[in-house]
Amino acid sequence: MAKKKLRVGLVGYGFMGRTHSNAFTSVSNFFDSGYTPELTAICARNGEKAKAFAEQWNYQSVETDWRKMIARDDIDLIDIASPNDTHKEIAIAAAEAGKMVMCEKPLGRNAAESAEMVAAVEKAGVANMVWYNYRRVPAVTLAKQLIDEGKLGRIFHYRAKFLQDWTISTDLPQGGEGLWRLDKDVAGSGVTGDLLAHCIDTALWLNGEIDTVTGTTETFIKERMHTLTGKMQKVTIDDASMFLARFANGSLATFEATRYARGHKALNTFEINGENGSIAWDLHDLHRLEFFDHSDEGLTRGWKTLHITDGDHPYMDKWWVPGLQIGYEHTFIHQVADFIKGLEDGTAPSPTFREAMATDVVTDAVLKSAETGAWESARN
Amino acid sequence: MAKKKLRVGLVGYGFMGRTHSNAFTSVSNFFDSGYTPELTAICARNGEKAKAFAEQWNYQSVETDWRKMIARDDIDLIDIASPNDTHKEIAIAAAEAGKMVMCEKPLGRNAAESAEMVAAVEKAGVANMVWYNYRRVPAVTLAKQLIDEGKLGRIFHYRAKFLQDWTISTDLPQGGEGLWRLDKDVAGSGVTGDLLAHCIDTALWLNGEIDTVTGTTETFIKERMHTLTGKMQKVTIDDASMFLARFANGSLATFEATRYARGHKALNTFEINGENGSIAWDLHDLHRLEFFDHSDEGLTRGWKTLHITDGDHPYMDKWWVPGLQIGYEHTFIHQVADFIKGLEDGTAPSPTFREAMATDVVTDAVLKSAETGAWESARN
Amino acid sequence: MAKKKLRVGLVGYGFMGRTHSNAFTSVSNFFDSGYTPELTAICARNGEKAKAFAEQWNYQSVETDWRKMIARDDIDLIDIASPNDTHKEIAIAAAEAGKMVMCEKPLGRNAAESAEMVAAVEKAGVANMVWYNYRRVPAVTLAKQLIDEGKLGRIFHYRAKFLQDWTISTDLPQGGEGLWRLDKDVAGSGVTGDLLAHCIDTALWLNGEIDTVTGTTETFIKERMHTLTGKMQKVTIDDASMFLARFANGSLATFEATRYARGHKALNTFEINGENGSIAWDLHDLHRLEFFDHSDEGLTRGWKTLHITDGDHPYMDKWWVPGLQIGYEHTFIHQVADFIKGLEDGTAPSPTFREAMATDVVTDAVLKSAETGAWESARN
Amino acid sequence: MAKKKLRVGLVGYGFMGRTHSNAFTSVSNFFDSGYTPELTAICARNGEKAKAFAEQWNYQSVETDWRKMIARDDIDLIDIASPNDTHKEIAIAAAEAGKMVMCEKPLGRNAAESAEMVAAVEKAGVANMVWYNYRRVPAVTLAKQLIDEGKLGRIFHYRAKFLQDWTISTDLPQGGEGLWRLDKDVAGSGVTGDLLAHCIDTALWLNGEIDTVTGTTETFIKERMHTLTGKMQKVTIDDASMFLARFANGSLATFEATRYARGHKALNTFEINGENGSIAWDLHDLHRLEFFDHSDEGLTRGWKTLHITDGDHPYMDKWWVPGLQIGYEHTFIHQVADFIKGLEDGTAPSPTFREAMATDVVTDAVLKSAETGAWESARN
Repeated sequence: MAKKKLRVGLVGYGFMGRTHSNAFTSVSNFFDSGYTPELTAICARNGEKAKAFAEQWNYQSVETDWRKMIARDDIDLIDIASPNDTHKEIAIAAAEAGKMVMCEKPLGRNAAESAEMVAAVEKAGVANMVWYNYRRVPAVTLAKQLIDEGKLGRIFHYRAKFLQDWTISTDLPQGGEGLWRLDKDVAGSGVTGDLLAHCIDTALWLNGEIDTVTGTTETFIKERMHTLTGKMQKVTIDDASMFLARFANGSLATFEATRYARGHKALNTFEINGENGSIAWDLHDLHRLEFFDHSDEGLTRGWKTLHITDGDHPYMDKWWVPGLQIGYEHTFIHQVADFIKGLEDGTAPSPTFREAMATDVVTDAVLKSAETGAWESARN
Repeated sequence: MAKKKLRVGLVGYGFMGRTHSNAFTSVSNFFDSGYTPELTAICARNGEKAKAFAEQWNYQSVETDWRKMIARDDIDLIDIASPNDTHKEIAIAAAEAGKMVMCEKPLGRNAAESAEMVAAVEKAGVANMVWYNYRRVPAVTLAKQLIDEGKLGRIFHYRAKFLQDWTISTDLPQGGEGLWRLDKDVAGSGVTGDLLAHCIDTALWLNGEIDTVTGTTETFIKERMHTLTGKMQKVTIDDASMFLARFANGSLATFEATRYARGHKALNTFEINGENGSIAWDLHDLHRLEFFDHSDEGLTRGWKTLHITDGDHPYMDKWWVPGLQIGYEHTFIHQVADFIKGLEDGTAPSPTFREAMATDVVTDAVLKSAETGAWESARN
Repeated sequence: MAKKKLRVGLVGYGFMGRTHSNAFTSVSNFFDSGYTPELTAICARNGEKAKAFAEQWNYQSVETDWRKMIARDDIDLIDIASPNDTHKEIAIAAAEAGKMVMCEKPLGRNAAESAEMVAAVEKAGVANMVWYNYRRVPAVTLAKQLIDEGKLGRIFHYRAKFLQDWTISTDLPQGGEGLWRLDKDVAGSGVTGDLLAHCIDTALWLNGEIDTVTGTTETFIKERMHTLTGKMQKVTIDDASMFLARFANGSLATFEATRYARGHKALNTFEINGENGSIAWDLHDLHRLEFFDHSDEGLTRGWKTLHITDGDHPYMDKWWVPGLQIGYEHTFIHQVADFIKGLEDGTAPSPTFREAMATDVVTDAVLKSAETGAWESARN
Repeated sequence: MAKKKLRVGLVGYGFMGRTHSNAFTSVSNFFDSGYTPELTAICARNGEKAKAFAEQWNYQSVETDWRKMIARDDIDLIDIASPNDTHKEIAIAAAEAGKMVMCEKPLGRNAAESAEMVAAVEKAGVANMVWYNYRRVPAVTLAKQLIDEGKLGRIFHYRAKFLQDWTISTDLPQGGEGLWRLDKDVAGSGVTGDLLAHCIDTALWLNGEIDTVTGTTETFIKERMHTLTGKMQKVTIDDASMFLARFANGSLATFEATRYARGHKALNTFEINGENGSIAWDLHDLHRLEFFDHSDEGLTRGWKTLHITDGDHPYMDKWWVPGLQIGYEHTFIHQVADFIKGLEDGTAPSPTFREAMATDVVTDAVLKSAETGAWESARN
């Protein structure tokens, strides 16, 4: 059967531009489906860099104005991998032009922006999805499966962290290319939107809605040279953010994100304790899932480390043979595979814009609580 | 040189009665000092059980009234290992009788009780110490040493947990022998005073004073049969307790304790992230310390697992040879060794009653915050 | 600058056909070089399967006779990923036709076959390489680097294992598609050539030549149904193989491979103990390297786990950001990248056929020793 | 009921003298039994050191001639913790005097010596036991239990190592106090009798008899200063020893011991692979047992780490509460507890002299094979 084409127009050529491009390129080699992505156009303001990127990844054309790219007839899907302050405008324009839209996380810089984006894609009725890629780490997908099967029973505790250490030095400047994550106007917030958002998306998916939160944030290094002005300026983003939460299911939680945890590069973790079992995972060994099953015989009860490389583990029948691990970029390939599956069977690929907005509601509540010092509602 | 005797009168024959008795019995076999403990008397209301305990541990005499024991001339040190609601009265009486006093943690059921106890021992000028035994896990002592040497530099983050799972079943009753920790009147609080207190003592020792906290507690199982009444009664203690904290040194922290973390028996943990390095430890592998040293060469930087069994590790020259681990009870032996060392060189063995009271101030603040929903001061 | 094409003709569409195809497809997206591989032709006896494979991987053409493929002018490189008994004939024909040759391991079914292949490629003067992919796990490459820098000093011990468990069941048949590894005529030997060969290649690379060996093999399940005859037949391959070795540098070694180690899927491991340090690695966490550096300060000496995801780790500047791991297939991509680098700078990409033959000399010695019960020379 | 006394006369005051003394001292505090050990006498040629040891451990008397001690009426048990070359003579004399005998391992310096010792205790009909203490690590005892229950099924593989690094330096002298393990005349052999003997005793206990072995040994540092002569002398002991083995049950094995494995202090390990499961353990985390249970559900199969601190784990009901680990010296306490249990119920406490002799037969075979280069029988 002839496959349909899925013609992609990408905005942005940074780190996420690479992970997305690789996903669109590789998915058909490993997953069977009715659609084959084509790298139709890459768009960036810097035409030279866009061109170099296009050559590296075999994009068929280059644009420097995303409005032009959206206007093109030969593009089915707009994929947004540019800085956070551009998400809303591009997504809404793309939806209005009837394009499918995939958008890097966080959806908007805050829930208000996200709400506009949700309204736009839902009004247009276009397929939409947000790149919360960690849902598709096979170990994380398996965790979801085990929870849904009731292996943990009633949940008492949830714990999540995302720890990095790359901004500890006072010499690191802020702003500009590659450093826009340190600029609040562009990013919306610091680690709250960048790192905690990942933890929250996973938590909402695995453990349901959060009712209330109390949190605090900190900026450890108060001033940094700004690359655009060349001057020392106040740092506006949060370097660290943490909060306590109460979920709708009655469980308690701690969440923490920071870029000041020496020795941790991208330590995204969660642990869930239920009546019948517990689950733990972290990104530094993403191919493993830790599982304690209280239904095991007493004498030989213990934490198991599941090596998620078997054919019956989520997505793993598409890859190699048992014992051989996959890595980070595969989560993006899985996401494209599921997006395409949604196109084929008419289901909405999760997380949709609407689902992803829920994370922004929580991050807004955390930031508000950090100002009021009080517990705040995390519900819309 | 002839050794002096240190004649001990113990109150209580429970779990802690055993760890203390073992410490007093074993210390002289491994540590050289001018004092040899003697197990002079054991006191408990239940004379039969006290007698059985005395036979097991070779106590020379049995008392059923602690006032009588305190009145005896042949006892130098009163060691309190009875339930929390008895600490204050016994400690004050012992101090007033001029006895040295060692007391199980937490010192009082709250900071107000502790303050009276501090006043009593300081007025009497007697040697006093609280059994926060985890300071003397060699790995924890080494952590203190590394921090004091500046190996971590400026501290950004502190994280502590104490996770258990022994009260998850609804069938477990409350109150009575062995279960007084589930009775608020006796214990003062639930996991806050029982488990978090350990985490807090370690934190204050390693990372200095805590300024403010915001916390919450939960009682997951609301009613349990009470062994004394035989009836279902409201559970009055906290099953879980967690809080965010800001330390005086500017670092941020999360603390959590629970008896509902399936798969964890006594997982007392801490991790500290500093500018130049990080340290992590947990009680399930108490003979190991995890250390990340940012001053290592870039290519071979990584978390090291230190096997704390070498002769130059704290206390370890007294035990076996490199590679051979010690266990839980050794922390109590170390504590007695240091108490005796204090007697010899005239220094106050840490933590004194005064130092231990600081922990009660923090737990009081956590419990208050759990009611007000606001940040509370954790300073006296 | 315009890139040259590297037109590939692949023989075989099995597991290794996939890893190679992926490597040729992906290398240019991540590595900059003067050559771009093109998937020009795939060849297999079963034309239908070859066609399906070609569609999946975008091969431009399909052949069913490898002689025809070798005869084509539009192919630069013959890549052999078919069963072991075909290696020799194809490789020699390809070399004689002046094609570059890459060949799956083991090179021949024994050293005699390999010697003919070496002679052919060297006589033809064509670029040649054997797919001992584990040399290019970044952690393994780093191990080589650390050893070459002298970080370990004089080597005392080498230990290697390759443990699997997929043939434990008596129900598993032998022979035929996907099961040719259980047929001695096709495979040459069992785990000795399949798994131990990997361990030996790594060992020779990291620790130099092996002088002598004494070994033994075992076939635990003596008869299995043969898929081609439908009858129970004697199993001719070795299920397990192990040997002691003495290296030219004076170090002692143990080697072991088996498909009967329950719980291990592809546990390829090595550990090296030197005067100044030790190194350990295993394939189940291929993105980590364990390192003990005796030059560390005594108090904080310990095994470090290096998370091989930093930009200064071998190959890792081509991938993502620190903390984000790569997986199994990347080793093949690195191998193609280095093969191309060899084409550019005129160096022979290691391991060449000649280098890979050294492994066959050792496996021959092990199999001979298993028969004689004596120590045998492992030198050519 | 009044307890009987078990009056102990110890020979030797070194490292093992301490572990034994502690075991005899502590056992009654934790284990209920009809016998209470008394530290009646300590014997050593150096009277001053013996006296100091007696004071440290509360021995009631001191002897400098073991013949005199054996002649005393007030001693029930002679415990031999002196260097290996003294074992035979003392044990035989003690047996002839009708004393119970406990002896440090290895029993004799070779199987011939051991055979004489076995004959003596069996002729005298006295209780006898050898201190292969690692059988009574609770995790190891549990391993035995799981194997006996058939949890592993048919065994395919056994792997054992004992790795140390304390003799790497050329500056370390040989011979004399504390260094007699480097003197072949005194020790019998190097690591073969010292370390491999432990591995072999455990293996025979867990996996049954060994049929044949082929091994090799090495002395890395050929000459060392001898403390008794002050001169550089040839090193006579083996620094490293390794062998392949075939067990009577058809399983294959590798064994290795060395004092040249940088980074390992006392890494005594074993792993056993069976049809239905696998077990692994090591001394550096002696309170854990690794277990893979193939009968687990496929999706959640994985290696479990059992934290051996629960009340239903072997010996652990005598110690603390779940989560709290014990250490090295407890294995000796368990051994005394079982020796006493044997006295009470009339069973022979394992390993008896006869059982321990089996290990010497294997070590003799290994040393012989190291000379002949051939497979040797490991059966009596």
